[in-house]
Parts: sequence; structure tokens; C-alpha cells
Amino acid sequence: MNTYQQIVLASRPQGRPVSPDNFRLERVPVPAIADGQVLVRNHFLSLDPYMRMRMEDVKSYAAPQALDAVMVGGTVGEVVESKNPKFRVGDKVVGMLGWAEMGVADGSALRKVDDIRIPLSAYLGSVGMPGMTAWYGLTQIMQPKAGETIVVSAASGAVGSVVGQLAKERGCRAVGIAGGAEKCAYVVDELGFDACVDYKAGRLDEDLKAATPNGVDAIFENVGGDIFDAAIARMNPFGRIALCGLIAGYEGEPVVMKNLRNFLTMRLSMRGFIVSEHPEFWPQGLAELGTLVASGKLKFRESVAQGLAAAPEAFIGLLKGRNFGKQLVKLT
Amino acid sequence: MNTYQQIVLASRPQGRPVSPDNFRLERVPVPAIADGQVLVRNHFLSLDPYMRMRMEDVKSYAAPQALDAVMVGGTVGEVVESKNPKFRVGDKVVGMLGWAEMGVADGSALRKVDDIRIPLSAYLGSVGMPGMTAWYGLTQIMQPKAGETIVVSAASGAVGSVVGQLAKERGCRAVGIAGGAEKCAYVVDELGFDACVDYKAGRLDEDLKAATPNGVDAIFENVGGDIFDAAIARMNPFGRIALCGLIAGYEGEPVVMKNLRNFLTMRLSMRGFIVSEHPEFWPQGLAELGTLVASGKLKFRESVAQGLAAAPEAFIGLLKGRNFGKQLVKLT
Repeated sequence: MNTYQQIVLASRPQGRPVSPDNFRLERVPVPAIADGQVLVRNHFLSLDPYMRMRMEDVKSYAAPQALDAVMVGGTVGEVVESKNPKFRVGDKVVGMLGWAEMGVADGSALRKVDDIRIPLSAYLGSVGMPGMTAWYGLTQIMQPKAGETIVVSAASGAVGSVVGQLAKERGCRAVGIAGGAEKCAYVVDELGFDACVDYKAGRLDEDLKAATPNGVDAIFENVGGDIFDAAIARMNPFGRIALCGLIAGYEGEPVVMKNLRNFLTMRLSMRGFIVSEHPEFWPQGLAELGTLVASGKLKFRESVAQGLAAAPEAFIGLLKGRNFGKQLVKLT
Repeated sequence: MNTYQQIVLASRPQGRPVSPDNFRLERVPVPAIADGQVLVRNHFLSLDPYMRMRMEDVKSYAAPQALDAVMVGGTVGEVVESKNPKFRVGDKVVGMLGWAEMGVADGSALRKVDDIRIPLSAYLGSVGMPGMTAWYGLTQIMQPKAGETIVVSAASGAVGSVVGQLAKERGCRAVGIAGGAEKCAYVVDELGFDACVDYKAGRLDEDLKAATPNGVDAIFENVGGDIFDAAIARMNPFGRIALCGLIAGYEGEPVVMKNLRNFLTMRLSMRGFIVSEHPEFWPQGLAELGTLVASGKLKFRESVAQGLAAAPEAFIGLLKGRNFGKQLVKLT
């Protein structure tokens, strides 16, 4: 095999919903590697909401995804050729090789991982960036004490599922918000949350009130919009909000907030964060997450699309909430 | 004189604009004082935006103002009768004796002040609760470094004027937002801000951009609504927001936010606060503020309504931004 497939950004959505036309599948030659480099065959690609923002040419925490370049993305795979003494053929590695079946990297951006105790795909989920996002937001921003109530939106997803389970480990009441009865049943029955509110049931305010009889002390926000607004209405004094995602805002429309005034009356604090900016916390967080996954205590679910060509539709589904658990693309 | 006047809350506005009918002026007998108490003749009453929120029967940081009870409010005056060994007739005192010409207090809630170096009315402004609100928000939440740009709304007001001047003391670029050319000229020419944007000029976004060529590192928010939204659009990464007031929200209407997503993309942090909950900072803050006022370095302006009966109209004017500087009512 002298070629492999990759997906590049063909055009920007410019505030409209993402369409398959925004992407282009290409076949390219396998490059020769230089000294210090390794060639990796990717087994799994991670699809994540942050990619939506990168597709636009706007001021943000990261440079926009370049047009006609390989779409950014986290990957896990194995080394198939190495001119770097730190890596051997067969090593399993996590990196950011993008929407592509193969990739070349110098060693600095790759991390060798163990796939004996922990399944390889988990390094893109609970023991990877999504898990660390949950861990950082919970421990560094929400800082919940035992007995407090936390709320997390997109609770069945890769990040939300970890937030609630880590909060339960710390003695909190964990309340999820998710779309649909099936996801909510999973959040409570399999993940062990105390309650989960189905925002599609049309009684968001009432159901959230019933699920949080003592109010809410901390929120992990993945969604924004009405769901966020409803959670703010339940906040107790000095509540903390970790702002991780605003899917509502990704399409660029204005957001109507009915309960913004609670930030003042309840003296709330909120902080937006990007976990990759806090590398000093990763060793501690990954150690906790890895131990919990290896022991079976931290549960997760994956939505796996088959083959790189399926990535655009899987990504569009992720933005629409159609995935159930961590969205991956299996590449081999 | 065996009687004095007071103003009580006659009815709640219930989400509508405050009207003079919401208040009732009463004449009541001067009470006899008990052991430990003092009788105070109030010289000045302070009118502040927080009173608007107290007029509604909503969940907030403080209990609602009771109907038919004297309106809450900060006062400065002098002791005219004392059965408390810590106070003598003639002592000048700051307290919370409400919208009333006289009041009875035990000593615990009164603070003796010096009116030689500092004018008595300043204890309701720059060297009182508004000044401390500015000091706390700036030093504890905004934490600006020299060279950074801060933005403060309601910049000509009792709180905003102090925020900007304290920021200048710390080597920052201070940019105000105020309503009208006269207020903006005052903010720049007399208070020494680097720039002031007139939100009534109809070019808020453009003018704020021009006034903040290096972006904004911290906001002191007194107003909310479009003004807040415009400032958020200018924030630099890791910007801090001290949320002190949401006049926009006080009337209960939903708020449309176009730039909420910047909280995520710029990793902003925001905290609502009530300065009375942080008494441990008052000695340090009042020392700095008192020194600056006594030396003439910290400038302020007062809007003084004459006589208690003028208080409701003055308060309504304050909510509409008609005051210019700290709104007081002179009672003697």
C-alpha cells in the first residue's frame, strides 16, 4: 500500500450548519520519513465538538483550520515505521494526526500508551482529552464538596459521563441532562447518576427542579442555550460553573438568557477553559482516570463509525446530538 | 421637634418600572431610646441600584424589602441623643438607617467617622459602600496588571468612577462607558480615564473597539445588556469580569447575548459579588480610599436631591441614568 486516505476542509460553513460538502476525501501517497520521525497507522479518529469552531475563520483560542489541509483531530494508532529511537514498530501511540488513515510525526507530539489494561479507543475518550476535560472542570473549577449537587449537560457524552461519575466518586449528587429517554436511562442505570432530565420531554424547568431539590452548587456546561439557562435558575449562592462547550453558540446565533441576573443575585462564578492549556494537571488526572477505567469503575460508551469516509456524517450527527457516547471513527 | 419623616415601600413594581406610587411618605413620632441605643439625625441618604432588586419579592442575596417598612438605605448623620457609652452627642456616624430623617440604632451597626479630612457625604460614596465595591471588584476579581486595559460601565457613577481611578493608580489603561457627551468628558477630563465611550452615540461597538486597541483584559460590569455584550466582544484571552450590577436585568426582561461564546473561546472568568459579604477586606480598602480622597487624588461628583420627599424621583432618575455622580438625598 503506497497511498492512504485523508479528509481536508473544502469550505467553511460560515455560520450555517455543517454539510458534507464542507469536506473532501483525498487519496495521497505515503511519504518517506526523515530522521527523528515515525509513520503511524491510525486505528481510531476522535470526533469532538471543538472541531466545529475551528472550521470557521473567527478569533478563538486556536487558529482556524486551514482550507485544503487535513482536518484537525485526535488519533490513536500504531507505529509502522520509525526513525526515532524512542519509538519502535508496534508501539501504540496517541497523537493529533487528524482525519487521516496514516500520519507522520516527530516524537514530541506522540504519547506511548498501554493497551493491555485499557482499550486503545479509551485514550480518545475517558482516558484522553474528553476525560481530562471532565476531570479539570470538576476538580479545578466546580470544586464540589461531598453532599453538594452538580449538574452536567450532554450527560451521556464523552465528557459529561465522566463528570458525573467523578462527582459520584466524591460523594456528590450528580444530575445529568440528556436528550431522550434512552440516553437518560443509560445515564442513571449504567453510569450511576442520581437523576437525568430529558430535555426533549418539554418540561425542562419543572423536571430539573424536581431533580435538584436542594438546588445546584456547580454546573458543567457542554451545551449552552435554554439548557444552560434552566440550570442557572437552580443555582445556590456561590455556585460555580465550568464552561466547556456552547453547541448552541457554535452556529453563531445570538443567545437569549432569562436568568443571567442570577450571576449577580447568587454571586455565581463561571470560567471557560480549554484543557490542553493546563498540561500540568494531566499526569494527576490521567492517573485517576486510567485507574478507574482499568478497574471497571468508570464506564463509557462509544459510537463507532466505520471507515474514514463515514467521518463527515458522523461529525454532523455529533453536532446534532445523534451520537450515543464518545464518537469515534474506526480506520482499520 | 417631636416627629420626623420617613418613606416606606407602599407596593412592589412587579417587573414594571418603578413609580412614585410605590413609595409613601409618612410622619412619625421620635421614639424614646433604650439603654445601649443612640438617636441619629441623618444628614444624607444614599440611593443605590441594589434597592431596585430589594423592592421585588424574589429569591436573591438579601431578603426583599418588607412592605410598609422604611426603605433600606445607607445614611450618614450625627448622634443627637445617646444611651450608649461608645457614642457621644455630636459624633458623626455611618449606618443603614434607611429612607428617614432620623433613626434609632444600637451601636453595633454604626461606624464613627472623621469629617475633618473627608467630607461626610463621601462616606456614602468613594469612602463607603460604592468605593469598597469598586475596590473589591478591581483588586480581588479583575486583578489587573500594569499595562492591561480595563473597561468599566456607568463610568461616571459612584462605583465606576472609583474603579477607573484605582486602575489608573495601578498603571492600567482605563476605558469608561457612560451615557452622553457631558458625562464622557467628565470621565476623561476630570477623572483621568484614558477614554470614555458614549453609548448613546449609537456607535458602541466601533467606538469601544477604537478605545481598546489592545483588547480588554478585565471588565467591571455595572449595567448589563448590550453594553456588557459589546465589552465581552473585546475581551482578550483569560479576561476577568467583575459582575456588580445588571440594571438591564433589574426590570426582569430576558437578555440577548451575542457574544456569550467568547466566554469559551477566550476562556473568560466572571464572578458576581456583593461587597458586604467580604468584611475582611474593608479595613484595607477603606484605608486606601480614605487616603486618596483626603489627598484629593480620588475625585468624585455628587447629585444631591433636597429633602426626603425628593427621594423617590431621585431614585427613579438613578435607575434611568439621569444622575451624574453619586446620588444622595440631603436631609437637613
